[in-house]
Amino acid sequence: MKPILTVFADSPDGGQGVARDMRVRWALEEVGQDYDVRTVPFAKLKESEHRARHPFGKIPTYEEGELTLFESGAIALHLAESRPGLLPGDAEARERAIVWLFAALNTVEPPIIEREGYLIMEKDKPYFRDRLTLLDDRVRERLAEVSAFLGERDWLEGEFTVGDLMMIEVLIRLKDPTLPGTSLLEEFPTLARYVERGEARPAFKRAFDGQRQVFLESQEA
Amino acid sequence: MKPILTVFADSPDGGQGVARDMRVRWALEEVGQDYDVRTVPFAKLKESEHRARHPFGKIPTYEEGELTLFESGAIALHLAESRPGLLPGDAEARERAIVWLFAALNTVEPPIIEREGYLIMEKDKPYFRDRLTLLDDRVRERLAEVSAFLGERDWLEGEFTVGDLMMIEVLIRLKDPTLPGTSLLEEFPTLARYVERGEARPAFKRAFDGQRQVFLESQEA
Repeated sequence: MKPILTVFADSPDGGQGVARDMRVRWALEEVGQDYDVRTVPFAKLKESEHRARHPFGKIPTYEEGELTLFESGAIALHLAESRPGLLPGDAEARERAIVWLFAALNTVEPPIIEREGYLIMEKDKPYFRDRLTLLDDRVRERLAEVSAFLGERDWLEGEFTVGDLMMIEVLIRLKDPTLPGTSLLEEFPTLARYVERGEARPAFKRAFDGQRQVFLESQEA
Repeated sequence: MKPILTVFADSPDGGQGVARDMRVRWALEEVGQDYDVRTVPFAKLKESEHRARHPFGKIPTYEEGELTLFESGAIALHLAESRPGLLPGDAEARERAIVWLFAALNTVEPPIIEREGYLIMEKDKPYFRDRLTLLDDRVRERLAEVSAFLGERDWLEGEFTVGDLMMIEVLIRLKDPTLPGTSLLEEFPTLARYVERGEARPAFKRAFDGQRQVFLESQEA
């Protein structure tokens, strides 16, 4: 039986791959795991049927037999630990890859999400410009640190791992074409190329096409 | 050889246990692992010696032989997976505990950290009061969701796990006595009692005393 991924029926990103099911789709494609998709309309996310799968009423969720998981980081880690392809064989190298999974989600993503929410929700406020500088600089600080660590390497720790997958997915949010203004990513060519290397992977492309297809079908309905 | 934990030489929280080494100390105490401490002065966090251990120039870092880890979530997971005490034996129950570790760090903590930074950095801004309502409500939404899930249970998924440890550590930030205003935690008695259950654990108390001792010694120096 294939695992089931719950995704937005009508993603607010217009099929641009910014919704968090993309991370899990990419991980599934990297490890070669087929899956089925369940779509949930926006209006039903906070209802009890979906809350039983996801206490915060978000997507994605992942079901595999009796096991139900939420949090894209936990699902990606589950896939990486249960199938070959996203973690190296060496024990210490595995730990380092997992460090970067947490760093992407807990150190790099929060200032990016804070800025993103601000760009969308507070753009008409009188203080908008002043505060934006502050939020941009917080994101730049993190980007500079990841860029300095990455340097000339293709991936964060030798081969491509679940840590790279999540870091690239977090950085890609900055390229969301529905956000106003320019992407801070352009200021860091090392990171822009790193993201491009991720996007060039066949598994990324299959995952992207998968989420785009769901969006296109929702528009026809 | 004991693992080495890097902590603030002079924690800005005044020994209140809000710094992120507390999470790892608590995990170390729960699994009964002795450890040594290396203190780093604030001024040296962003210098190359510490950056070699932590690319973002933060604390804690964790060294065990050749292995160097950063990110408190990754270190807590490493301890939980390598020693008994923080994960159940059953495979599916382990996965659910890890889900809550990620939920604490990636879903519950970000709005708490955003509000905390705002309380400290922007309290004199003309827009302070208006925006605070917005940030408070985002935190309340998450707290209500965790509270609804927890309900009458002692811990999130049966026995105490690394997921509870991290969730309680994230919620404790709201009680930081150096922050202005009231703790939003008081509005959720289910969560306030949950945090108290965590604080009552002997391992928590030993960890708290450990970090407090470092602060007290820094004041004598």
